[in-house]
Amino acid sequence: MEKFEVNILGCGSALPTTRHYPSSQVVNIREKLFMIDCGEGSQTQLRRSRLKFSRLNHIFISHLHGDHCFGLIGLLSTFGLLGRTASMHIYSPAELETLLQPQLDFFCKGIDYKVVFHPFDTNVSSLIYKDRSVSIHTIPLQHRIACCGFLFREKPTPNHIIRDMIDFYDIPTFAINAIKNGEDYTLPDGTVIPNSRLTCPSAPPRSYAYCSDTIYLPRLADTVRGVDLLYHEATFANSESARAKETFHTTAAQAAQLAKDGAVKRLLIGHYSARYEDESTLLKEAREIFPETIAAKENLCIAL
Amino acid sequence: MEKFEVNILGCGSALPTTRHYPSSQVVNIREKLFMIDCGEGSQTQLRRSRLKFSRLNHIFISHLHGDHCFGLIGLLSTFGLLGRTASMHIYSPAELETLLQPQLDFFCKGIDYKVVFHPFDTNVSSLIYKDRSVSIHTIPLQHRIACCGFLFREKPTPNHIIRDMIDFYDIPTFAINAIKNGEDYTLPDGTVIPNSRLTCPSAPPRSYAYCSDTIYLPRLADTVRGVDLLYHEATFANSESARAKETFHTTAAQAAQLAKDGAVKRLLIGHYSARYEDESTLLKEAREIFPETIAAKENLCIAL
Repeated sequence: MEKFEVNILGCGSALPTTRHYPSSQVVNIREKLFMIDCGEGSQTQLRRSRLKFSRLNHIFISHLHGDHCFGLIGLLSTFGLLGRTASMHIYSPAELETLLQPQLDFFCKGIDYKVVFHPFDTNVSSLIYKDRSVSIHTIPLQHRIACCGFLFREKPTPNHIIRDMIDFYDIPTFAINAIKNGEDYTLPDGTVIPNSRLTCPSAPPRSYAYCSDTIYLPRLADTVRGVDLLYHEATFANSESARAKETFHTTAAQAAQLAKDGAVKRLLIGHYSARYEDESTLLKEAREIFPETIAAKENLCIAL
Repeated sequence: MEKFEVNILGCGSALPTTRHYPSSQVVNIREKLFMIDCGEGSQTQLRRSRLKFSRLNHIFISHLHGDHCFGLIGLLSTFGLLGRTASMHIYSPAELETLLQPQLDFFCKGIDYKVVFHPFDTNVSSLIYKDRSVSIHTIPLQHRIACCGFLFREKPTPNHIIRDMIDFYDIPTFAINAIKNGEDYTLPDGTVIPNSRLTCPSAPPRSYAYCSDTIYLPRLADTVRGVDLLYHEATFANSESARAKETFHTTAAQAAQLAKDGAVKRLLIGHYSARYEDESTLLKEAREIFPETIAAKENLCIAL
C-alpha cells in the first residue's frame, strides 16, 4: 500500500516543557510531506525524524498562537541556508503574511526560494490543496482566535487489474486503462466480460483529520465521520473541564466522545497541558469512551 | 565567594543540529541572571537549567542573525503566559525593536509586563548596564552584520574586616564602614592603626568576556586582557580557515591565540559549525596554543 503516515514532531501546548515540543506534525503521503503547524523547535524535530527536507513543500498553520507557528522563521531560514530553491507554500489565516514577511525580508535576505502565502478563510470549509493523490480541506474550529483544522483525503485509486484474466481473454494493452477505470470488455466475438471478472477493488482511500485548537464541537462528528485517523486536541483531563471550556480547549473525554460519534477508526490525542507530568490520565479518560485511542508523543509515526 | 557562573544553554551555530542548540548563555551573578543571545529553543534550555525565570530581567543580543535571536519571541511569550509582571530589558542592535515589536503586539497582547528595548551602537564600546555588583560594556566585533560582544566586570568589593582586631582595639560599630573602605583608625589616645592591620583584601573582582560572532580580531587581546573567562566563537577548524575569513568567523586556533595574547585565565570555545560531528578537533587545535581551553556544551555551568 502507498505510504500515508503521520509523524508527530511535537504535541505539547502553549507552555513548552522539557518533555514536549509545541505542536507540529508531518503527514507523509507517498513521500510528499505536508507539515501541520510549526511550533518552536520544529526544525530540530524534523531533522531528528530523518524525513527529507526537500520533500516538504507545503506547510499548514491552523492558527496564529505562538505554539503553532513560532518555529516557522527558523525553519524557513534554515532551508535558505541549505540552498533550497523550490517554492514553499504556506496555508494559514491571513495575518501570518503580515507578521512573517518583514522577518523573512530581514533574516532571509538573499535566499534562493520563494515563500508563497495562501491565506484561507477560517469561517468556512474550503478546498485549499489538491494533487493527483490527495485533497485537503479546512475544518473551521472554534478557539480564542481564528482557527482551522485540516482534513486530508486520499483520492480513490483505480481497481487492480487481475493479470491472469487479461492473459486468459488475450486483452490488448491499449484496453487496460479503460478496464482499470471500471469499464467492461467486449471480446471480438461480441461477448461482454463484466469488469468485476477482470479487476479487484483497490484499497479504499484513506483520510486523516487534524483538529487543534478548539472547544468541544459535537458537530465535528459529521465532518470527520469515518476517517482512518482523527487527531484531536485533548488539552485537559475531566477535572479541568471548566477550564477547558473557558480557554476554548477540549478534554480527552470530549475528544473521545467526538471520535465515537463520528465513528472514526482511531483517535490520536495531543496538545497536552503542561500541568500533566505524563499523559496516562488523559489517555485513560479517552479510552474509557473510545478504546481505539493513541496518545501522541514526539517522534511517533503512525501508518494509516 | 559570591556566585559568578556562566551557564551554556546552546553553543551551535547557524544550522541547528540534533546535538546543539543555537547560541544562548545565562550569566548568573549573585542570583541575578543575564541572558546573552537567545536562539530558537533557548526557553526550553532555560527550563532545563532550573535557573529561576523570575531572576532574569536583562537579555543581551549580540547581533541579529536568527541563531542568536529567534528564541526571543517564544521566551517572552512564555513569560507572559506565566504571569510575569517585572519589566524585561533587552539590549541589542537597534533594528530588533522594529522586528520584534509587531510580533509582541500580535502574539503577546495583554501580557502584564513591559519589554523595554535598549539599543546600542555596535561601532563603539559603551557601558550598557551597571548595578552595584557588575558593569557590562559592549565589545564591537566584526561580522557580516552589526555585532557586539559583552564584557562583564564585577565591581571591586570592600576589604574584609578582621574581626579579632576590631575586638582587640575595641573599635565601635559606626567606624566599621570607613575601615572597610580603606581608612585607618585612630584610637582615643591618638595612635593610628593602619588599615592593613584591620582588614584583609577581598577576592579580586572577576570578569567575563563574550565574543561571538566575529572574524579573528587580534586587537581584541587588549580588550579582554586578563579576564577570568573568555568565551570566543570557534566556528571552524584550521582546515577551514579560508572559509572562516570569508564568512567573518574565527577558527579554534585563532580564538586560542587571542586568549594567549590577552593572557586570559581560561578560554571557552563554542558556536561550532554543524559540519563537525564532535568538537574534539576544535578543542585539540585550541589547546595546542592555549591549554586552558574548555569546549562549551549544552547544560555546562562554569564557575568563575
